[in-house]
Amino acid sequence: MKKFSELKKEELIELRDRLEKEINDLKALKLNLDMSRGKPCKEQLDLSMDLMSVLDKDSNLICRDGIDCRNYGGLGGIEEARELLASFMENKVENILIYGNSSLNVMYTIVMQAYVFGVMGHTPWRKLDKVKFLCPTPGYDRHFAICEEFGIEMINVPMSETGPDMDMIERLVANDESIKGIWCVPKYSNPDGYTYSDDTVKRFARLKPKASDFRIFWDNAYTVHHLYEEPEKRDYIIEILGECEKNGNEDIVYKFASTSKICFPGSGIASLATSNNNIKDIMSHFKYQTIGYDKVNELRHVKYFKNLDGIKAHMKQHADILRPKFELVLNTFEKEFSPIDGIRWTKPHGGYFVSFYGLKGTAKEIVSKCKELGVKLTDAGAAYPYHKDPDDSNIRIAPSYPGIKDLEQALKVFTTVVKIVSIDKMLKIC
Amino acid sequence: MKKFSELKKEELIELRDRLEKEINDLKALKLNLDMSRGKPCKEQLDLSMDLMSVLDKDSNLICRDGIDCRNYGGLGGIEEARELLASFMENKVENILIYGNSSLNVMYTIVMQAYVFGVMGHTPWRKLDKVKFLCPTPGYDRHFAICEEFGIEMINVPMSETGPDMDMIERLVANDESIKGIWCVPKYSNPDGYTYSDDTVKRFARLKPKASDFRIFWDNAYTVHHLYEEPEKRDYIIEILGECEKNGNEDIVYKFASTSKICFPGSGIASLATSNNNIKDIMSHFKYQTIGYDKVNELRHVKYFKNLDGIKAHMKQHADILRPKFELVLNTFEKEFSPIDGIRWTKPHGGYFVSFYGLKGTAKEIVSKCKELGVKLTDAGAAYPYHKDPDDSNIRIAPSYPGIKDLEQALKVFTTVVKIVSIDKMLKIC
Repeated sequence: MKKFSELKKEELIELRDRLEKEINDLKALKLNLDMSRGKPCKEQLDLSMDLMSVLDKDSNLICRDGIDCRNYGGLGGIEEARELLASFMENKVENILIYGNSSLNVMYTIVMQAYVFGVMGHTPWRKLDKVKFLCPTPGYDRHFAICEEFGIEMINVPMSETGPDMDMIERLVANDESIKGIWCVPKYSNPDGYTYSDDTVKRFARLKPKASDFRIFWDNAYTVHHLYEEPEKRDYIIEILGECEKNGNEDIVYKFASTSKICFPGSGIASLATSNNNIKDIMSHFKYQTIGYDKVNELRHVKYFKNLDGIKAHMKQHADILRPKFELVLNTFEKEFSPIDGIRWTKPHGGYFVSFYGLKGTAKEIVSKCKELGVKLTDAGAAYPYHKDPDDSNIRIAPSYPGIKDLEQALKVFTTVVKIVSIDKMLKIC
Repeated sequence: MKKFSELKKEELIELRDRLEKEINDLKALKLNLDMSRGKPCKEQLDLSMDLMSVLDKDSNLICRDGIDCRNYGGLGGIEEARELLASFMENKVENILIYGNSSLNVMYTIVMQAYVFGVMGHTPWRKLDKVKFLCPTPGYDRHFAICEEFGIEMINVPMSETGPDMDMIERLVANDESIKGIWCVPKYSNPDGYTYSDDTVKRFARLKPKASDFRIFWDNAYTVHHLYEEPEKRDYIIEILGECEKNGNEDIVYKFASTSKICFPGSGIASLATSNNNIKDIMSHFKYQTIGYDKVNELRHVKYFKNLDGIKAHMKQHADILRPKFELVLNTFEKEFSPIDGIRWTKPHGGYFVSFYGLKGTAKEIVSKCKELGVKLTDAGAAYPYHKDPDDSNIRIAPSYPGIKDLEQALKVFTTVVKIVSIDKMLKIC
């Protein structure tokens, strides 16, 4: 097929008319499809139903150290659960705290503690004129929302296939004491699906920020979420906390993970891995905050997965469901978009998203037109601080939730809309 | 038996010697008993084991409004759970939010939100020179700890059998804008076991505080936790939110409850009942804070209890276990302490505690001596702000956790220690 750029104006208009007809046919279908969030689909949730039966009325709910999981107590999580999370986070058990069902809540709480009480004896952020966070972009909208909630100024840092721009990060944190943190999704990043290179992780671990209460918020949300059985070299990531320890820099990182996209997103267990100093600091507030998290649910997850091998075997089943969806997206994009110069997309080996970059200034219109046709996408700009994509180009594609048939229809809508909006953009220029 | 006050000095010394011998016998037993917290005992936890089997691998985990409980979403709780909690809190479903497993965490979060963001558009408490809370005393130590965590000044308000001193409360809140809240355990209060009278609740509902962001923190922790089948008139409490509505004062109260002492303390569901305005205010922060609470656990509780009748029937079984323990405490106190003028204790019909008031200046020593003998009690002073019992007299007795035999031994230790310390106190005076 000819490149769009090689078509004459009349040919473009003719093509547009044909696409408009297709749109009308699609409109008649009255679709109602949601691709806006990285939600597992029903088939994925069904994989974990045995989780509901590993504990029953005859179970022994006393955990290894003698604590009755049904009763109060056990701040920080039961040992078995800390061990399970430690295994897939590649950390020592002593560096693990277990929380409730939401790792987002863990991140929020840690930012709140820094804001109200300060990090390890430093001035609480609420008392400072200005607090800034670095935000590799595009990134995870809910990270940025936490910054907005606490009035933290966000600075964009460009992402590439090897991770965020480390030159820029090193320069900024070395000179600006008001920079207190950075949000990272280091593996199969949200939304690009990039995994930070060895060099990137090593440079993070050696960071020497001016602010000694600067922290890396390392949201390892997709640590075991591979699409392919044998991860390639580019899908491997160095464990950050150990790397920081090697550099005598172990207090600089908070590392987050959860079982949300391993079993049930609403009913999993979340975890923090960090240095002993940070754990002590966090625990000093923990005791006011809660009577402890749900230990029965912790035990349920331990009984179900048993160990890292159990988690890995389980994740292969997820991959079998997700892989065809991702491949459908990538193949469709390849087929439909290769004639359009200036459109690109990422080709992740794991995680939950494909990142689409349309022609500049088209993303909002694409999302809006898709919505009219019954296909809900993540808002354009959502992956950028303050919802401002400087290029108005990025759209986060979340293929996990719809079934294959629905996904095909959604992609038909999406690709047709992209083509029309791109032609409109080109016609304006010529 | 003769009153201690009628004994001559020599007789007191002789009695003390005999008690000292008993103490030595008790020491030889090397006891290790914990009566420090209001924890349900194993037999109580066993009552709810069927909770572990109401959901299994074949269960339908889609809730009434079509939400898949396993997946993300559903901030505020599933309708069925809100209905269940509404039934035992005596509130409308629309006024209910469901949280995670800890009502303490709900209270902490609401204080945090007021501190950081402000209540319904008012100045955040962190920006004020002074924020004060009224604390009916003795009260719940973890309430007071939240105030300490946020630097909130606490003002003691004396408790009586009908509730806190309302004259004092009305006067204070009417004149001091820095008073922003009050902690209440209105039913079977912690630790006295008192239930607020109709008049007290009505005066609360009519409060006209100077600070329009003043809130009543109404921790209805023991709402269905009766020891006797037919609650007496004095055990009945007017529902506060409805009473506030009648007075056009519905934004003044946050009402808390949970299933913690109904089924499993570590794995229950907590709830807030409050006005629509307050719910809107709280939800505006909720969305940054979490992806939602554990809806599978909500559904589990609904399937298990079904409705208010289910909860009531269940609570009768708890009462059957707790009643003999409370009666043992009260009968032992009656028998052992009636000769000592100046010692008194409360006689609750529900809740988790008996409040003991020894001679002035003896509580710390009693608790310390009991600890030496292997009986751990709640710290003396714990029920007072800043851990300061002005009379050093109150000790919170928590009879729920030990078995009857252990409780007998613990009470033997306690009563013997109380008598010795009381005699020492009397000998110093005479």
